[in-house]
Amino acid sequence: MSQQAERDRLIELRRDLHRHPEPAWREFYTTARIVEELERIGVDELHVGRDAVAEDERMAVPGDDELETWYEQARDAGADEEILERLEGGYTGAVAVVEAGDGPTVGLRVDIDGLLRAESTDDDHAPVAEGFRSEHDGAMHACGHDAHATFGVGVIEAIADSDFEGTLKVFFQPGEEMIAGGKAMAESDHIDDVEYLLAAHVGLDHPTGEVVAGLDGFLAVSHFRAEFEGEPAHAGGQPNDGENAIQAVATAIQNLYAIPRHEDGATRVNAGKIGGGTATNIIAESAHVEGEVRGETTELKDYMKARAERALESAAEMHGCTVERSTNGEAPSAESDQELVDVVGDVAGTTDGVDTVVDRDELGGSEDATYLMRTVQQNGGRAAYVGVGTDHPGGHHTATFDVDEESIPIGIDVLAGAVREIAERRP
Amino acid sequence: MSQQAERDRLIELRRDLHRHPEPAWREFYTTARIVEELERIGVDELHVGRDAVAEDERMAVPGDDELETWYEQARDAGADEEILERLEGGYTGAVAVVEAGDGPTVGLRVDIDGLLRAESTDDDHAPVAEGFRSEHDGAMHACGHDAHATFGVGVIEAIADSDFEGTLKVFFQPGEEMIAGGKAMAESDHIDDVEYLLAAHVGLDHPTGEVVAGLDGFLAVSHFRAEFEGEPAHAGGQPNDGENAIQAVATAIQNLYAIPRHEDGATRVNAGKIGGGTATNIIAESAHVEGEVRGETTELKDYMKARAERALESAAEMHGCTVERSTNGEAPSAESDQELVDVVGDVAGTTDGVDTVVDRDELGGSEDATYLMRTVQQNGGRAAYVGVGTDHPGGHHTATFDVDEESIPIGIDVLAGAVREIAERRP
Amino acid sequence: MSQQAERDRLIELRRDLHRHPEPAWREFYTTARIVEELERIGVDELHVGRDAVAEDERMAVPGDDELETWYEQARDAGADEEILERLEGGYTGAVAVVEAGDGPTVGLRVDIDGLLRAESTDDDHAPVAEGFRSEHDGAMHACGHDAHATFGVGVIEAIADSDFEGTLKVFFQPGEEMIAGGKAMAESDHIDDVEYLLAAHVGLDHPTGEVVAGLDGFLAVSHFRAEFEGEPAHAGGQPNDGENAIQAVATAIQNLYAIPRHEDGATRVNAGKIGGGTATNIIAESAHVEGEVRGETTELKDYMKARAERALESAAEMHGCTVERSTNGEAPSAESDQELVDVVGDVAGTTDGVDTVVDRDELGGSEDATYLMRTVQQNGGRAAYVGVGTDHPGGHHTATFDVDEESIPIGIDVLAGAVREIAERRP
Amino acid sequence: MSQQAERDRLIELRRDLHRHPEPAWREFYTTARIVEELERIGVDELHVGRDAVAEDERMAVPGDDELETWYEQARDAGADEEILERLEGGYTGAVAVVEAGDGPTVGLRVDIDGLLRAESTDDDHAPVAEGFRSEHDGAMHACGHDAHATFGVGVIEAIADSDFEGTLKVFFQPGEEMIAGGKAMAESDHIDDVEYLLAAHVGLDHPTGEVVAGLDGFLAVSHFRAEFEGEPAHAGGQPNDGENAIQAVATAIQNLYAIPRHEDGATRVNAGKIGGGTATNIIAESAHVEGEVRGETTELKDYMKARAERALESAAEMHGCTVERSTNGEAPSAESDQELVDVVGDVAGTTDGVDTVVDRDELGGSEDATYLMRTVQQNGGRAAYVGVGTDHPGGHHTATFDVDEESIPIGIDVLAGAVREIAERRP
Repeated sequence: MSQQAERDRLIELRRDLHRHPEPAWREFYTTARIVEELERIGVDELHVGRDAVAEDERMAVPGDDELETWYEQARDAGADEEILERLEGGYTGAVAVVEAGDGPTVGLRVDIDGLLRAESTDDDHAPVAEGFRSEHDGAMHACGHDAHATFGVGVIEAIADSDFEGTLKVFFQPGEEMIAGGKAMAESDHIDDVEYLLAAHVGLDHPTGEVVAGLDGFLAVSHFRAEFEGEPAHAGGQPNDGENAIQAVATAIQNLYAIPRHEDGATRVNAGKIGGGTATNIIAESAHVEGEVRGETTELKDYMKARAERALESAAEMHGCTVERSTNGEAPSAESDQELVDVVGDVAGTTDGVDTVVDRDELGGSEDATYLMRTVQQNGGRAAYVGVGTDHPGGHHTATFDVDEESIPIGIDVLAGAVREIAERRP
Repeated sequence: MSQQAERDRLIELRRDLHRHPEPAWREFYTTARIVEELERIGVDELHVGRDAVAEDERMAVPGDDELETWYEQARDAGADEEILERLEGGYTGAVAVVEAGDGPTVGLRVDIDGLLRAESTDDDHAPVAEGFRSEHDGAMHACGHDAHATFGVGVIEAIADSDFEGTLKVFFQPGEEMIAGGKAMAESDHIDDVEYLLAAHVGLDHPTGEVVAGLDGFLAVSHFRAEFEGEPAHAGGQPNDGENAIQAVATAIQNLYAIPRHEDGATRVNAGKIGGGTATNIIAESAHVEGEVRGETTELKDYMKARAERALESAAEMHGCTVERSTNGEAPSAESDQELVDVVGDVAGTTDGVDTVVDRDELGGSEDATYLMRTVQQNGGRAAYVGVGTDHPGGHHTATFDVDEESIPIGIDVLAGAVREIAERRP
Repeated sequence: MSQQAERDRLIELRRDLHRHPEPAWREFYTTARIVEELERIGVDELHVGRDAVAEDERMAVPGDDELETWYEQARDAGADEEILERLEGGYTGAVAVVEAGDGPTVGLRVDIDGLLRAESTDDDHAPVAEGFRSEHDGAMHACGHDAHATFGVGVIEAIADSDFEGTLKVFFQPGEEMIAGGKAMAESDHIDDVEYLLAAHVGLDHPTGEVVAGLDGFLAVSHFRAEFEGEPAHAGGQPNDGENAIQAVATAIQNLYAIPRHEDGATRVNAGKIGGGTATNIIAESAHVEGEVRGETTELKDYMKARAERALESAAEMHGCTVERSTNGEAPSAESDQELVDVVGDVAGTTDGVDTVVDRDELGGSEDATYLMRTVQQNGGRAAYVGVGTDHPGGHHTATFDVDEESIPIGIDVLAGAVREIAERRP
Repeated sequence: MSQQAERDRLIELRRDLHRHPEPAWREFYTTARIVEELERIGVDELHVGRDAVAEDERMAVPGDDELETWYEQARDAGADEEILERLEGGYTGAVAVVEAGDGPTVGLRVDIDGLLRAESTDDDHAPVAEGFRSEHDGAMHACGHDAHATFGVGVIEAIADSDFEGTLKVFFQPGEEMIAGGKAMAESDHIDDVEYLLAAHVGLDHPTGEVVAGLDGFLAVSHFRAEFEGEPAHAGGQPNDGENAIQAVATAIQNLYAIPRHEDGATRVNAGKIGGGTATNIIAESAHVEGEVRGETTELKDYMKARAERALESAAEMHGCTVERSTNGEAPSAESDQELVDVVGDVAGTTDGVDTVVDRDELGGSEDATYLMRTVQQNGGRAAYVGVGTDHPGGHHTATFDVDEESIPIGIDVLAGAVREIAERRP
């Protein structure tokens, strides 16, 4: 296929994914389309669904009805039924392997999920004007993961056509927005032999033509949900008979925010959602709080998490309730290794379309690519998180976010170039 | 009409109302059917909708969409369109007046609303077996107000046919279940010249054939909803920028329950429902709590209400939020006057079908008939709350509650008899 | 001894005790003086110190230094050294037994302790004018227990001289003001064979000449002290290293006041004293709260106590602290038996100096005579708490409180008369 | 005087000050001795007491009785009575000025107060062995301010004897340990014309022979005391009549610790001391909490202070109390200017006895020299905080802390040398 035809095909893929944004563990259409493309290209190994992730480590998996709804929607949208069947039960995502002779194993992680927010209907919004706006009500690719998935396919294609010597593994990861999928992918055995890992993100206020060789500043984070169960009672008649789940939630919240600051750096805590009770005159039998803790390092996050658990347990005990706690998403902190950052910077500096190379910048949020990065680093390998600039009219997570499609081939060139250079240099 | 025909007609009315249970300010079908009956019987005055209540004193009026839905449903069920129009905007309820020469003005208050709970589909459940189960999904007459409305119509019919000398006013009150309608009816001017007031309730664990001449022990109560509004912020990025509505709710709850006990008698407080926030990583912009305070007397309820307001306001201020408080239901305490209780007891003792007369019993809950009772008492009149026993298979407010229809003519006879005897004795 | 001489001697005793007010378990001088008098009168059994109380049930016993200080003070004031030695270690109080032939065992309980508050120095204050003001700085008989102790001695003397047939046991109880001594006396074995028990109190706003045959309305009460121990840390340098005892106290207080009201009757809770911490920049290692719970019945007090313990334990756990709880005083509720009230009323009605007999009145506070009353009642006996009116210029527990000495012989006559009449009637 | 004689005299002065440690605003003996020395040496201006500080800016001034006690003690210890009189009312501290021709105005700030902690009585402790242990029970120079005062005197002497051209101002500051004196000295007008300011501290785990040219990392801090006043009531009888100051304190504490973290850097909060209430059965009329807030910058401290004030005010309002807040100590953050740090480093590098020069280090605590540093910097001048190493057997603020006297002449040489070099270079 001509280079232009290849690029057209990738843009078409990106637009197709954009039309079908799917949230965590519901990326049925998305995974099926990626797999179709990879089968077309031809890879040496292709692990799909249960074969791609550590089953028990998936977080925030929705209920069966919710999964079913999205599954049907994917089928109705024309996803390949044979592939779909392998994803049943919310086992989305894939790992593709290209084996090309002796050389190191290089990994690339791209995330593929969309967000549960409505897309703009404004005529100025390119997906509207060009006819590829989201077809799923209330869902949108508002953070560029459609482009990321396209990077993954494009890099495989580029490497397959190149003189790369080594093994390339591309991780198409579900559920990043809920930091729900990174752990499941990092604990599959596909990551074990990866010696170098790249991850990438578009935009982040960097314009088309700019590349950030190393992004850092990921706060470690953990999301929790605590469900308190007590005993209902009539508030007028037998107030003493109740065990009040709403009092337990209130006590928990007051003490969650009061977890002491830590000498070693920044920490965070938030009780972001509450609910519970059935009527003004009934002592609430059940009530819940959802929240998160963060830390500048994984250790700080763990400190906050342990203290939060103590607060939740003690608040339950205080009011004669039980509490069921679940972790709905989690990511450690991570740092890009300077050795890889140098390689990416060098490659970007000589890539067509790149006019500015930034050595390092801070992300300042959370990302569960950090699970894969840490696993590789703990195994003695190296990892870097690369920023690919793109002009984006709206901010990330807003209704008018869009990716400048000019930046897609640039991203592919930089990432594929870096993969080849890594195999060469073995930094 | 023969007495049997009259009674058949009343049972038919009760079953029609049972088929169309409607909650507070949505009693469109119910009011229309009552008005139809009263127009058939012929009364001297008939005040409907806006003319029956003090408009500004209605509490817990639902939004326009909700009103519209129930209004349409009433029309579809065949309610008289001309009457319906007079109820538009949630002005349900009616006051009927029978003028019969010189004599005192005697009032009877009956409540007419249903509950938002589903009715049993069990074949053993009489309304299922007899074909008059609720036609409104998720709504039910589970507390016998269908029988109460029938009492009102029946008493008018009985008095109209009798030698009663005086004026009878029957108050068909909306929204008792939410204690949302009593105040609006008590502050209309129809109550002003009422010298004697009876109110009645079926069941309450008293079997068919039993009459309680005076029920008491109504705890004064006030329902509140407090909506806290703060400022959202990203919990990881700018925690200091938020004004946290969930922290405000937690602080409010902890301090609501901590309102001091009172030397003068029993008090209660409950935070029965909470909700708020949008995401684990967003500092909640809004959150709410719904609850209630009670007191053995109206003064004790007012003490609790004042302290609760202080707690809510201070909790808002503590966390830089505003709070909008609304009273969604309220009722004072009240006591039955022994002079009326004596009359009712005497009449019941000689009424066919009554085998047991209980002088007094405790209700132990809340009821907003107390608004009308207090108004009459404060004007120098007398009031009593009468219990009409009925065998009820399920408890009040449960899915299998039902009224033994044998008790309906008994209730009408006792109440109509008491009205006549009051005019006679002027106790 | 002539009756007048006897009475003079008793007034002298009362004034001597008034000059030496001593608080709980420090009644060294008081006990010694009582014992001296009893030895002079001659009784059949005299149990002192360790022999009078159940050692392990003493509550709120002060530390050794404090005991030593009061012990020395008693010696310096001239207390009999031989008797004092039997009281060492804070084993104050006595039980005296008069055996007078066949007949029931009748008990009389009087309390003997003073209060830690300064007495008025006003010239109008009778103890100042008559020269028997407290010689112990900061301590005072401000509740008439000097008169109660005198009642005990006077009744023994009166009974010893009478035709009483039966056994009289007089319990001179320490530590009533702190409700710290009743349990220890009730759990000694002296109470076991008591079939009828009287307890008495002067004043309570009843004037000289009035007798209340039965006092009731004792709220059951329990005093607690909770000492939280955490880990100190520098608040600026290592805030995360601390386990914050002050946070634990704050959490405990918020949740103590939030213990639900009870359907069965009045309850109370108070956190009356707090303290803790050492410096603004140190996370507090230790902090304490002292408080109390009450209930209209012993069961309600026990409900409050159990919930309070849960709150204290959970607050400690919440903040990584330990908590040591102690009960510093406790008393159940109790009721006077009508059979005894009738006897007392009859006797009072024929006693010289009594002009008014009130059948029953409410005390409305707490008193640990209830321990002895309940023990007797649980053993199948009867008990009553008698009020002996006295004109008192200042209120109870104020600096100008004083007993009208005219009421002392009246009290002795009524109580001794009742003891005799009980033996006669065996009600 | 020979150099050795001068040094002996300075050591003697240091030991005399060590024998008489005095806390904030009680440095009567200390100030008097310093003034005596300065009068002996002869300076151009000498401002003492009220003339040295901004009267209204003194924080944490003790009560009259406390001041009187220390004043008498200073007189009894032989302080010059004439000088003492100028210090009456707690106006301690002094500012000495040496004018030596044309040149810049250079300031040196030394603090002079001791700590309220007992000194070791161990024979190994040098002040015990050499006979200059604290003569004031429970007070001690445990942080080397005796050495600092000596630096001040020594530098004046050295400069007076030198070819320095310019003006030297030495600020002998009271109340540093409570961060209570810096503001009063910074807001006197003596600081206004200072173009360069040095401050100094011994020890801090740097050994004799080491000099830190620039110390930083002062957390801004503010100490508060909040006194809540409510209404007392009997907790059993009239719980509703009270306005509970202990509940207010508990609510305040829970919400103080829950002040949100800040995106701009580290913050701290601590409630370090609590107290209040009089008895278990009385609703507390008054209760207090003492605490502190800190911030990595002055702005962060101000954010915490504003939020803390809101929490305290709202907690009072929540429980019907008033709250009186006072700031008992405060210090901004500050940074050493590199230009001055360079000068100090250069001078230290050529000073006898200095073997190691550290460019910069972190203090990691609070210090109110920052008030003077900021004032100079805001006026366009430069400031640096210098560390003078000293072997100290015990840690700062412990009973066995002591200064290696070998380090005192080194400190004087470095500081005097820096003053001269600053005048020369005008950096």
